[in-house]
Amino acid sequence: MRCPEPYVRRVNYYETDKMAIVHHSNYIRWFEEAREDFVRKAGIDYEQIEANGILMAVVGVSCEYKYSARYGDIVVIETRPVLFNGVRLNFEYIVREQESGRVLVTGKSSHCFLGEDTRRPLNLERRMPEYCKILTGLLAETGGDK
Amino acid sequence: MRCPEPYVRRVNYYETDKMAIVHHSNYIRWFEEAREDFVRKAGIDYEQIEANGILMAVVGVSCEYKYSARYGDIVVIETRPVLFNGVRLNFEYIVREQESGRVLVTGKSSHCFLGEDTRRPLNLERRMPEYCKILTGLLAETGGDK
Amino acid sequence: MRCPEPYVRRVNYYETDKMAIVHHSNYIRWFEEAREDFVRKAGIDYEQIEANGILMAVVGVSCEYKYSARYGDIVVIETRPVLFNGVRLNFEYIVREQESGRVLVTGKSSHCFLGEDTRRPLNLERRMPEYCKILTGLLAETGGDK
Amino acid sequence: MRCPEPYVRRVNYYETDKMAIVHHSNYIRWFEEAREDFVRKAGIDYEQIEANGILMAVVGVSCEYKYSARYGDIVVIETRPVLFNGVRLNFEYIVREQESGRVLVTGKSSHCFLGEDTRRPLNLERRMPEYCKILTGLLAETGGDK
Repeated sequence: MRCPEPYVRRVNYYETDKMAIVHHSNYIRWFEEAREDFVRKAGIDYEQIEANGILMAVVGVSCEYKYSARYGDIVVIETRPVLFNGVRLNFEYIVREQESGRVLVTGKSSHCFLGEDTRRPLNLERRMPEYCKILTGLLAETGGDK
Repeated sequence: MRCPEPYVRRVNYYETDKMAIVHHSNYIRWFEEAREDFVRKAGIDYEQIEANGILMAVVGVSCEYKYSARYGDIVVIETRPVLFNGVRLNFEYIVREQESGRVLVTGKSSHCFLGEDTRRPLNLERRMPEYCKILTGLLAETGGDK
Repeated sequence: MRCPEPYVRRVNYYETDKMAIVHHSNYIRWFEEAREDFVRKAGIDYEQIEANGILMAVVGVSCEYKYSARYGDIVVIETRPVLFNGVRLNFEYIVREQESGRVLVTGKSSHCFLGEDTRRPLNLERRMPEYCKILTGLLAETGGDK
Repeated sequence: MRCPEPYVRRVNYYETDKMAIVHHSNYIRWFEEAREDFVRKAGIDYEQIEANGILMAVVGVSCEYKYSARYGDIVVIETRPVLFNGVRLNFEYIVREQESGRVLVTGKSSHCFLGEDTRRPLNLERRMPEYCKILTGLLAETGGDK
């Protein structure tokens, strides 16, 4: 299974702050956009997961800021799954400015599948085996941990 | 019934944009904060409305920008109900900079009570008469329309 | 001059609220995205306007909510200039759900060109005649007022 | 020097997402609010730092999510400086739900003082010795590293 193409998007004016750079909180939102784009392109419909009564809760995020994205920039976000064991799913991200290719920001997020009703951890394997297969395949492709 | 005191809050850094002023979309969020503060102080618990299966949908908003709020400003937001007929509820807002008292922004919002299940208009009178009484009282106080 | 193609974008998860619909404040941000996309496609570089020491301040916005956009929706936003006189520039917007074509939200925004230093109104004609020509052409195309 | 009182604030409706919890990106914004409240109460005016041509850039953030804040919650955010050496300044945060005292989220942020013009690291000691003294005092109080 080939990893999906990176996610590309423009910087919005409302994402800048008075330092004339993108406010640091927005990269966390871009990670979410990139992650959803990544799984969508791989054939996973996050809405369908939720329709099955499963939530993908965010357990942790981190972000390292090297350079600032600015209004007018187009950014390219690479998403890479680095761990998947049925219950936990971790991603890493690299945000680049498209024109220069310069790395602006890197980050990580870790997730846990929960029952919507119970709000307790749940193994995706039993409930959505086809999606597990896709995630395992992507992980093998990118060299992440099981 | 006396109208509640205005809502006071600081400008957050993340609410500014690269013009070094508060991004215009944020005033719509401040109206929401001010409206909820207003009804809360008047004895209305919006969570309880939702717990009764009733949503207060936003039907329209408008906003006129005179001067810009800036980082470091404390703003004072006056909320005034201007119409309530059981189904529809309209508010007007005035945002002032606290120190100078200068009017920065004025706005309006109109709302409609809906059944959460049906997503159809619903008269609050039958379901939550005590809240209707409060809203009618506030309206009389501020001279709005029934 | 042909009007640019409408702006298309996905609903982001972080744009939803606990009613499971897009929070009403976000449409104001989408109008901004759509407006910038519109002028960019027409050959206007908003960064260049700012580089010339000119700001395009938002004077007013309004929004009418008919149906709610939801997570998973792709929305199509039509932008139409309805007034331009060198100093003032007004737009109208229609937000549709792509699949059904259903109109979700309509809105308006009015803008004023300002000197960055003076923060006073300024006629774009003298400073950026080429952009005035483009805006006038688009206005003629869409039947708006001069 | 006594550490300032924790920062207290309500959850806003627009901060929730369709899981009916606060969207995870917002905690990063709350950290900023809490950090600015903390330094303000300690006698540091962040606007004055910027007025001196100094920026406090965010170098990294991280956040661990244990329980979710919900609409209607009042949250209490403790801020603690854990490192300050004139150039770098790190904070840790604990977000609690006020009524139960339950820890919802913990996080960290690291910052670097930069010249606004040069965008290069800068020692606050030479430019704002009085603020350095305050930060060093707060650090001693909380047992952080120099």
